[in-house]
Amino acid sequence: MIIVITGNGKGKTTSSIGQIIRALGHNQKVCLVQLFKGESFYGEQKVLTKLEGLDFFSFATKHPFCFKDITKEQTVKECQQAIDKLKEIIKDNKYNLIVLEEFNIALRDNFIEESLLLDVIKQLNEKSNVVITGRGSSSKLIELADLVSEVKEIKHPYNKGIPAQEGIEY
Amino acid sequence: MIIVITGNGKGKTTSSIGQIIRALGHNQKVCLVQLFKGESFYGEQKVLTKLEGLDFFSFATKHPFCFKDITKEQTVKECQQAIDKLKEIIKDNKYNLIVLEEFNIALRDNFIEESLLLDVIKQLNEKSNVVITGRGSSSKLIELADLVSEVKEIKHPYNKGIPAQEGIEY
Repeated sequence: MIIVITGNGKGKTTSSIGQIIRALGHNQKVCLVQLFKGESFYGEQKVLTKLEGLDFFSFATKHPFCFKDITKEQTVKECQQAIDKLKEIIKDNKYNLIVLEEFNIALRDNFIEESLLLDVIKQLNEKSNVVITGRGSSSKLIELADLVSEVKEIKHPYNKGIPAQEGIEY
Repeated sequence: MIIVITGNGKGKTTSSIGQIIRALGHNQKVCLVQLFKGESFYGEQKVLTKLEGLDFFSFATKHPFCFKDITKEQTVKECQQAIDKLKEIIKDNKYNLIVLEEFNIALRDNFIEESLLLDVIKQLNEKSNVVITGRGSSSKLIELADLVSEVKEIKHPYNKGIPAQEGIEY
């Protein structure tokens, strides 16, 4: 099953983390491939990396929009490494759940070619599940997916000028 | 901060689980009060109950809509126990994050009086966070909240007759 969690609201990454915890509770083998997230910043990474049954890969930890020391070319290269890893993962066929964190962003910002990602995902064993998160999911990915949720922002303290809070936003 | 995760789409409970994992990663003290969920059915419960820093309480494990051996009166009574526990929790003031799983459902179905829950939540220390999940959140709770996300169903395999899947829906 292909699951897409998109939208402009808070709750996409936390939802994919919850999905990982749920699958691990059923003794499933889980793999997380994360883009655009520094490895020590987010609270969840400290817990997830200690859990048995989860393999954790991180690529392109800095998005060039946020970090001026990273070029688009470097990001494309690092996202290609993520795709190569994903090909390997899908070929190995040992995971029940594969989470592709912020891959929608990589498609939206043209760091990964849409057709390339779709072709890889189509190779997924039909008994396995993949979750793809990030705002701005592509219409072709939504069409291909079996389950799509859109997390809509109704209200956010950012809009009142309140900064991101430890334990909530990261 | 008061956070509400509502809407008809998949990802609300998993989002609150992810929020718990994130907070625990920052060594925060977390408390989960869960309604309408049998304790051994959901994969997440097997993992969450083992994590350090999390206290887990479960009330009204069966919703009378799903289980005919439970009356509305029993559910109201058990939800009242959940509210009493919540009052204690907020008074003790030892948690950074309190997650109230499916409390929106308890409001929607009149198992908990809205004004009662709102009055309790308003006592929350301003440095603590509460997350309230479940579809059909009340407009007064949304008004009171600082952060609200609506998880909208765009596509779900239920609609094609595919049953709930272990590791995904539970």
